[in-house]
Amino acid sequence: MAFAHRHLLGLAALSADEILFLLDEAEHWLAFNRRPRRQDDRLSGLTIVNAFFENSTRTLVSFEIAGKRLGAQVVNMHVEHSSVKKGETLADTARTIDAMRPDVIAVRHSIGGAPDEIAGVVRCAVVNGGDGTHEHPTQGLLDALTIRRRKGRIEGLKVAICGDIRHSRVAGSNLACLPKLGAELRLVGPSVLLPEDAPAPTFTDMDEGIDGADVVMMLRNQRERMEAAEIATLEDFHARYGLTRARLARAAPDALVMHPGPMNRGVEIADDVADDPERSAIWDQVEAGVAVRMAVLDHLTRAKREGRPT
Amino acid sequence: MAFAHRHLLGLAALSADEILFLLDEAEHWLAFNRRPRRQDDRLSGLTIVNAFFENSTRTLVSFEIAGKRLGAQVVNMHVEHSSVKKGETLADTARTIDAMRPDVIAVRHSIGGAPDEIAGVVRCAVVNGGDGTHEHPTQGLLDALTIRRRKGRIEGLKVAICGDIRHSRVAGSNLACLPKLGAELRLVGPSVLLPEDAPAPTFTDMDEGIDGADVVMMLRNQRERMEAAEIATLEDFHARYGLTRARLARAAPDALVMHPGPMNRGVEIADDVADDPERSAIWDQVEAGVAVRMAVLDHLTRAKREGRPT
Amino acid sequence: MAFAHRHLLGLAALSADEILFLLDEAEHWLAFNRRPRRQDDRLSGLTIVNAFFENSTRTLVSFEIAGKRLGAQVVNMHVEHSSVKKGETLADTARTIDAMRPDVIAVRHSIGGAPDEIAGVVRCAVVNGGDGTHEHPTQGLLDALTIRRRKGRIEGLKVAICGDIRHSRVAGSNLACLPKLGAELRLVGPSVLLPEDAPAPTFTDMDEGIDGADVVMMLRNQRERMEAAEIATLEDFHARYGLTRARLARAAPDALVMHPGPMNRGVEIADDVADDPERSAIWDQVEAGVAVRMAVLDHLTRAKREGRPT
Repeated sequence: MAFAHRHLLGLAALSADEILFLLDEAEHWLAFNRRPRRQDDRLSGLTIVNAFFENSTRTLVSFEIAGKRLGAQVVNMHVEHSSVKKGETLADTARTIDAMRPDVIAVRHSIGGAPDEIAGVVRCAVVNGGDGTHEHPTQGLLDALTIRRRKGRIEGLKVAICGDIRHSRVAGSNLACLPKLGAELRLVGPSVLLPEDAPAPTFTDMDEGIDGADVVMMLRNQRERMEAAEIATLEDFHARYGLTRARLARAAPDALVMHPGPMNRGVEIADDVADDPERSAIWDQVEAGVAVRMAVLDHLTRAKREGRPT
Repeated sequence: MAFAHRHLLGLAALSADEILFLLDEAEHWLAFNRRPRRQDDRLSGLTIVNAFFENSTRTLVSFEIAGKRLGAQVVNMHVEHSSVKKGETLADTARTIDAMRPDVIAVRHSIGGAPDEIAGVVRCAVVNGGDGTHEHPTQGLLDALTIRRRKGRIEGLKVAICGDIRHSRVAGSNLACLPKLGAELRLVGPSVLLPEDAPAPTFTDMDEGIDGADVVMMLRNQRERMEAAEIATLEDFHARYGLTRARLARAAPDALVMHPGPMNRGVEIADDVADDPERSAIWDQVEAGVAVRMAVLDHLTRAKREGRPT
Repeated sequence: MAFAHRHLLGLAALSADEILFLLDEAEHWLAFNRRPRRQDDRLSGLTIVNAFFENSTRTLVSFEIAGKRLGAQVVNMHVEHSSVKKGETLADTARTIDAMRPDVIAVRHSIGGAPDEIAGVVRCAVVNGGDGTHEHPTQGLLDALTIRRRKGRIEGLKVAICGDIRHSRVAGSNLACLPKLGAELRLVGPSVLLPEDAPAPTFTDMDEGIDGADVVMMLRNQRERMEAAEIATLEDFHARYGLTRARLARAAPDALVMHPGPMNRGVEIADDVADDPERSAIWDQVEAGVAVRMAVLDHLTRAKREGRPT
């Protein structure tokens, strides 16, 4: 099967089969990355530009390692220090990069839709590495892969996403992905942090929300957003929405705990939950991230590498 | 023909034949960069340090891609965050880099002459990636290459350079290059932004200055400099010196429009001019930049690679 | 001989034989780095992450060049801009990197002991690239290599380390290394900048301290620390503790002058001393640094590469 999209801008546009295909491909790279040497040459002579308009060290490093293990020339472009400050438009920055004839641009941007705008003006492939409060598709894929590997399936699982759903691109991509794969989602958080027109049942009570859940996916807590939710202190947030061992007992007995990182320990997640290898899949998520990005970079460049029209 | 210079510090020191030789070489790399895979190995085992004492994302990325496509180990050194702040002299920073035995240092610096100072204390080759208001020789070469490719020749063309000529290293390198290749230059801008002892006819009236021009090369507008020119607003600057479609009608019918980027749309250049692929060569310039830098890196390392004295 | 340590956290834990073994190995890489092409493939398919929690351009570039010349995938992670600001713990940042399955993490951190903490939670090898006022083991190795190459031996040499010993990780690693190799150390500086429980004779008078010394190792002077020492001006510091040609005459006739860089010329060292190639080994130190780091990266990855338990 060939992946038929020119870009990966979000998971909303992908079918369940396309998502499952990328997960299967990522399985290969996950095993590959556990070998003593991890050097493929399929992207040899190809150029990947990581254009990060917003700082995100962990995502950047993951894309960089993914590209290098596939043999690509990887160039990091810290655009937050760059022409943007000099008044250049996003489209012109994108055209500038594209004129250097890269094969893929991985874009991180604080504004939702920025990768789409870039995709509209360039010849190369664009991967969304997180845009505003919109999507973070490789995060959605790595979350799905992690669930499938740890639980053996996704279909039929009850997944509770907890915290600031409204402003989370991670939640955005999971909402676009997991229901297609047959999971049953619930959204848990203070009411002002829940999405309007929520596409899944919502809960403002954490204990109710995670009751019987097979997967408890915590989101990163942003202090400014808590203030909007009129939650006075971190302790207060922890008391109401933090994932403690006691609270986790409400979920299914073997419930999996996830977090996209970086974690605020003692705020949205307690130490003993984060550090329990039987329950926590947090480091599996990071590992899956490199594999998923390798699968995506591989398939977004295939048509061009094989001389097919893109 | 062998390129006989150890460094590329400016175009003022090059003969017309040397410049044309580099342009011919860059033509090869331009075609190479349009192939599906672009990986040469002639710089394999060679180390290029991009020592950027001043931020310039686009030039840095261009040098980095150029080096990597030639197979070099490319190391970016953001010296603006570095020892300079700790009181180290420029010469000592240069000696430190050189002691790690790189083959080329590409230098960007806010002070004119910094690359020459570095060249004076190192064993490796130095490429000037832009120094103060002095020169930006790879920009001059890429501009010449772009003109030659789009107009078929340089000799006999009327080239109007417009804007802040006095403080522009881009103008500096074009002034050092284009007349040698037979172009007829004109300098257009507010009088305080025109160079003293101008080496070409000057115009403070934009319509007069671009009258009949074959190439209209706009420069990036710097707000602080406009104030010095007593131009009160961006709108005022645009009215007097912005390149609009109406104004472009004064130039030759097929006049080429250039801009080194990043563009201030609506200030020095109007959208419909920048975006007209028949007239604008702005993205061609960026593409030519990678090719020119590959030619330069190739030739500055040849003597050493071939065991000839440098 | 196989290097039996999983990490290189400091020189205090190494035996004289282990240090000498690394110096011998570094000799090979030093010669290798003087060849026209320097590309080994022994680390092909291995991933090195340079996790710099504190800025240090020269050390970062040295590690990066070392890794690339050995064929590794080298990824620089500027952690000072990163998740640390978002409240992530050091251990979690380390676990995140480790989950991407690197082979080596080179750590620079402003807090002594940070690399040890990281080594405690990761599967890969850790190299300390300088931690707080504790150790900087590759600096200690490069200093020892430089002395051995320039003086022909280390055993029996009188080495005066001068300046802010108390807060210097460079001094820390030299104190851990040189006495094991038979050197006789002296520590010279204002009393408040000398260590408590000094492991070697101390001198507050510079002339006395360097009297007859075979090696005079100057440290970088930190302005804030001088204030603590109640030294009012840079001139005053230079008068009392600067290495001038006149003062150097007190040392042995062929005494070697060293400095880890970046130098404050006119403060801790005079120009004519720094620039005398017969006496100064300052650039030799930088060159030795790349070679030493290649030896360390090679040996820390050998067990894994050869399928031995680590």
